[in-house]
Amino acid sequence: MGDDKILLGHGGGGLLTRSLIDDEIVSRFGQGPLKGLPDGALLPAMKGRLVFSTDSFVVSPGFFPGGNIGDLAVHGTVNDVAVSGAKPMWLSLALIIEEGYAISDLRKILDAIKAAADDCQVQIVTGDTKVVRRGQCDGIYINTAGIGELIDGFDLNPNAIRPGDKVIVSGNLGDHGMAVMAAREGLGTGRLKSDSAPVHRLVQSILDVADKIRFMRDPTRGGMAATLNEVVADRDVGVLLDENRLPFSLEARGLSEMLGFDLLHVASEGRMMCVCDGAIANDVVNRWQTLPEGANACIIGEVKQDSGMNGRVVLETAIGGRRVVDVPQGELLPRIC
Amino acid sequence: MGDDKILLGHGGGGLLTRSLIDDEIVSRFGQGPLKGLPDGALLPAMKGRLVFSTDSFVVSPGFFPGGNIGDLAVHGTVNDVAVSGAKPMWLSLALIIEEGYAISDLRKILDAIKAAADDCQVQIVTGDTKVVRRGQCDGIYINTAGIGELIDGFDLNPNAIRPGDKVIVSGNLGDHGMAVMAAREGLGTGRLKSDSAPVHRLVQSILDVADKIRFMRDPTRGGMAATLNEVVADRDVGVLLDENRLPFSLEARGLSEMLGFDLLHVASEGRMMCVCDGAIANDVVNRWQTLPEGANACIIGEVKQDSGMNGRVVLETAIGGRRVVDVPQGELLPRIC
Repeated sequence: MGDDKILLGHGGGGLLTRSLIDDEIVSRFGQGPLKGLPDGALLPAMKGRLVFSTDSFVVSPGFFPGGNIGDLAVHGTVNDVAVSGAKPMWLSLALIIEEGYAISDLRKILDAIKAAADDCQVQIVTGDTKVVRRGQCDGIYINTAGIGELIDGFDLNPNAIRPGDKVIVSGNLGDHGMAVMAAREGLGTGRLKSDSAPVHRLVQSILDVADKIRFMRDPTRGGMAATLNEVVADRDVGVLLDENRLPFSLEARGLSEMLGFDLLHVASEGRMMCVCDGAIANDVVNRWQTLPEGANACIIGEVKQDSGMNGRVVLETAIGGRRVVDVPQGELLPRIC
Repeated sequence: MGDDKILLGHGGGGLLTRSLIDDEIVSRFGQGPLKGLPDGALLPAMKGRLVFSTDSFVVSPGFFPGGNIGDLAVHGTVNDVAVSGAKPMWLSLALIIEEGYAISDLRKILDAIKAAADDCQVQIVTGDTKVVRRGQCDGIYINTAGIGELIDGFDLNPNAIRPGDKVIVSGNLGDHGMAVMAAREGLGTGRLKSDSAPVHRLVQSILDVADKIRFMRDPTRGGMAATLNEVVADRDVGVLLDENRLPFSLEARGLSEMLGFDLLHVASEGRMMCVCDGAIANDVVNRWQTLPEGANACIIGEVKQDSGMNGRVVLETAIGGRRVVDVPQGELLPRIC
């Protein structure tokens, strides 16, 4: 490891691989069941039903204001597990690294993974490292898979959504996508930072009203527009959003207007939304607002039953008009996560 | 999907992504818990302790004699779970695809994944698809993570290895690595094919002698040399291999001699090895030989306690000499899996 670059040999399965794994991976994550780096990690006994999720992360650039590909890879999978109503517990970590990648950058990423995993109280228990030649990857790609234990009480089912239910978000939307975009284009981001963060505490905070939560999701690729359209697709209800209530940071709003993005299409990586019984909506907002990650939580819309709206997401604009909020068509923001 | 190439938009989280997922992924894997393609798959209740494993696959070329990156990605993770003494049950599937990749090739790969998963009786239950620009990947990279249920009876522990134990392999070594290498170099492979295959049936076949099995592993990257060196490293035993007994195909042997590879360093992807009590070694060989995937099973060596051998793997050569079998140093065969 005297050299500061990743070599092809680091992925060959021999001595160089061993030293990379021992020095950089086991040293950070080897306290848990990963000890000895088993290809197959034997997990402690678990009681509940399991939720299983995976995501690959290819974000460009790998370092951006507010985070890097490492903590993002932890948050992304932890959040997918958490919004499924489960307590995230175990993660796998698989790296594809380009020959020549700076080991100092790899260390920063692994440090961020370690810090994020500790914050989320999950353990990295198994992994894999591959090295590909220059030009066969763009720096580093990371896959995490996660296992969580289903939390008693949640019975999430979009079919249970009914008129009068409220749509709540935990904070500003689109900061992650705009921060990455700005970093990529070399634009000044000012105070704009990615929102990359875990949402599991937000989920835990609404446990005792779990039976009144119909649906939870983290609005990542495709943004809130894609998430809400998935909720109402082919159903006999729609969602009416109130533009005046949509929480956007000033910075994301300014940048999105300059670059021509609809922030409803832009990914967050540390926000969650839920659809819940209207009777508990204010209670959920209050609970979320007591957490730092939920400080800007608010109700942004309501489920409606109306022949013109069913199956659709409609925005009531600030000046009183209405427009349909579509799913983004193709690729607005490649490699945002 | 009229166009036959992957577009950046297929990874954007919008309508194009949805159509790719629905047409190509859900249509193949949507019979199980993946139905509706949850980011987090809620698994049926499980009884035993769990084994969790992951691997990313970057093999080049993606299609090779005897398989492709798709079935390899299933076999690789199924085998890691199986040799940990568990019954493989659930897989995640995460794709990173290069812009411009032929959708017809993607379909062949997904068909191979489906066939391999069916053969292994595992279900793909959750997944992720990313698309990166041309030149940021080499066609397609696949990550699978797998969950299995620990099989009662296995108590695998390399610390239990003792003198007189035997080392058994289930078939010819190194065919996968040499077949991929030949395909990459455009050499004729003749009858040489990758051994890519699942080993879970081999594991099941020795269940009722499970308490006499000390260690199981699939000798992938780094080959049998890396696997055996891991077994004996820092222990007060060594392994003596008998060159006359090592099972190599004629084709792999010829090619390795031509190209200057030691077949003990070359990956297999459908073989397993075990170290077991010498008293049951012939029984294990007989059981394995009754399965097609174990037809060439044989004892290749013995665990020894000897001050000159402890911590080492030593080969007794065909002409009666001895040499130490080292772990490969660096990268002999990049992107073999």
